[in-house]
Amino acid sequence: MGNCNSYSLVEISLSQDNYPVYFGDGLLRNKQLFSSLIKNKVLIVTNDTLEPLYLDILKITLGEIPFGCVILEDGEEFKNSLSLNAIYEVLSNNYYHRDTTIIALGGGVIGDIAGFAAATYKRGINLIHIPTTLMAQVDSAIGGKTAINYGRGKNLIGAFYQPKAVVVDFQTLGTLPLREFQSGLAEVFKYALIEGGDFYDLFEKFVHAQENSINIALNSQLLYSLIKKSCEIKSAIVCQDEKEVGVRALLNLGHTFAHAIESYYDYKKYLHGEAVSIGLYCQALLSCSLGLLQQETVSLIDGLLFKLKLPRRLPADIDINKLYSLFLYDKKIQDEKIRFILLEDVGKPTIVNDVEKEMLLKVLSLARI
Amino acid sequence: MGNCNSYSLVEISLSQDNYPVYFGDGLLRNKQLFSSLIKNKVLIVTNDTLEPLYLDILKITLGEIPFGCVILEDGEEFKNSLSLNAIYEVLSNNYYHRDTTIIALGGGVIGDIAGFAAATYKRGINLIHIPTTLMAQVDSAIGGKTAINYGRGKNLIGAFYQPKAVVVDFQTLGTLPLREFQSGLAEVFKYALIEGGDFYDLFEKFVHAQENSINIALNSQLLYSLIKKSCEIKSAIVCQDEKEVGVRALLNLGHTFAHAIESYYDYKKYLHGEAVSIGLYCQALLSCSLGLLQQETVSLIDGLLFKLKLPRRLPADIDINKLYSLFLYDKKIQDEKIRFILLEDVGKPTIVNDVEKEMLLKVLSLARI
Repeated sequence: MGNCNSYSLVEISLSQDNYPVYFGDGLLRNKQLFSSLIKNKVLIVTNDTLEPLYLDILKITLGEIPFGCVILEDGEEFKNSLSLNAIYEVLSNNYYHRDTTIIALGGGVIGDIAGFAAATYKRGINLIHIPTTLMAQVDSAIGGKTAINYGRGKNLIGAFYQPKAVVVDFQTLGTLPLREFQSGLAEVFKYALIEGGDFYDLFEKFVHAQENSINIALNSQLLYSLIKKSCEIKSAIVCQDEKEVGVRALLNLGHTFAHAIESYYDYKKYLHGEAVSIGLYCQALLSCSLGLLQQETVSLIDGLLFKLKLPRRLPADIDINKLYSLFLYDKKIQDEKIRFILLEDVGKPTIVNDVEKEMLLKVLSLARI
Repeated sequence: MGNCNSYSLVEISLSQDNYPVYFGDGLLRNKQLFSSLIKNKVLIVTNDTLEPLYLDILKITLGEIPFGCVILEDGEEFKNSLSLNAIYEVLSNNYYHRDTTIIALGGGVIGDIAGFAAATYKRGINLIHIPTTLMAQVDSAIGGKTAINYGRGKNLIGAFYQPKAVVVDFQTLGTLPLREFQSGLAEVFKYALIEGGDFYDLFEKFVHAQENSINIALNSQLLYSLIKKSCEIKSAIVCQDEKEVGVRALLNLGHTFAHAIESYYDYKKYLHGEAVSIGLYCQALLSCSLGLLQQETVSLIDGLLFKLKLPRRLPADIDINKLYSLFLYDKKIQDEKIRFILLEDVGKPTIVNDVEKEMLLKVLSLARI
């Protein structure tokens, strides 16, 4: 089980609150850590896939701390108001008060929905994220975005709400399905493209190691370094711009495309990271078409996505005009203009507001198989 | 119509954001003011009572600014997730983006629900409050509390979310039903009890003036001063403690009782201020029973509530044990203890955490007719 009492720490500093992100092997079993974080009653929110894997471990760790559980069905399609109401019901019917701590044990869906419940129940209760997927560990559990999907809009209803702490237990990646692991790597790749430099080199090294054996990669210190550094990159950006009025938008590299693609397929065909992967390719194409990015960098990005066994192209039968219409739901739209995060080079993201409809349609056509 | 271009201003300063509260006669018609506050598309949220009174005026004032409307049914019973979803639907179906401004035109119900929609749609859009009731002008539109009722809990789901501006047009009080006006005065009286000193004297003077004629009172500068000073008192407290972790709790004088009473009667029997009025009497009784407050101050409070023609006693047939059980839903509960704001004297509120159940039951019995 490794040394479950050792962990490293990244401190996230925001204008109002600071909170720690703990990284380690076996942190789910760390009684000392959890008893230092929790003051009172706990509500654990998780899903039916994770329940048999980790709920008992967490219960033992909580020891004397009183807790309740909400077990949601696993899947993006359950990130809706029905699931949210299920959490509210348990909180309300069992007299949970403002000093309650919600523990979000799961991936991005659980983190987002439990986080939004914590943000809004009695105008805000304590929240601890235990992200169990690579995607959640490097992205969704960091930065305080919470949300549910609503109608056609992904994350349409939500709040910025910072947790009291994030506990990243690397061991939980051991039970993560390969497809979800690869999906998470797309998000790590996004950081590499934004950050460039040493981090990009580290990522390339990891991809090379992973090509030889999945298991070695999964257990490697290389992966743990990537996770920790991804969090550091994200937190550095979030610290500068908690509410995404400026620089935080850079984190959306590839995401304007990804959100439209996910929405097109009702969040069913692709995992978020898979849509991000296609989005990273599309943004590279668009950057190149606008004369911002060199063709060889597009090929480099395409090659790495291929090595990661991630989807990179839009399906041949996708309706480009319908897909375009879904871009208009994007939350980053200002003054009726779609805002893209594009690349001038690896490590050089830029914000572009004035992409013509025709140019976007052309790029979408080019990105089809 | 008065001079609609003149107004006075109170600046609310919070740790992160400052925003102005404008006071004046006829501000609803002030095109210059609104065009300076609004950047882009507007969604007006109001109710079916106010629609025929003020919507056309506001539309003319908005002039060229594109807007949509959501007209909710009037009443506390509509402060629920159905009304909230009605707002989300309009926002979502009509491609409202993050740079949208919601204008909450109405009393506390409209302000709370439209405010919560603004807090959560796309993780937060602009919000302008135009409070049209005395209660909203002195209380609910100031301080950034937004919420909907959920199940048995008043304001159980909500968020702290500050508006871009608050526009208090005194003229809107001209169409306010007398019962609602009196209800608002209960909240002003609460400020007088918390603040004491000159403000309390001003309030007594106003009550005396009001005893002689409602119309004079309604139009008087005395009332306008009370409204403005109430906002100043509230904003001074909110500035110190935006998220109600400390001193802001003092604003809940009488409200722990009021919320239980409102909940007991399903928010139907009493207006909020009427329940606050009974709550102010109950807290005085409890303060006195605990030896904190003199009997003569209890009589003074009772006498002023009588002059204001507000209810002061619990109905004879109320089930005290059932009422007690509703105290346990209070948001201010910490470590399983109900927290009361009590009075040591006029102008000397205090927080008391250790009220015994028996003592509370005794006071509730004493407060029955």
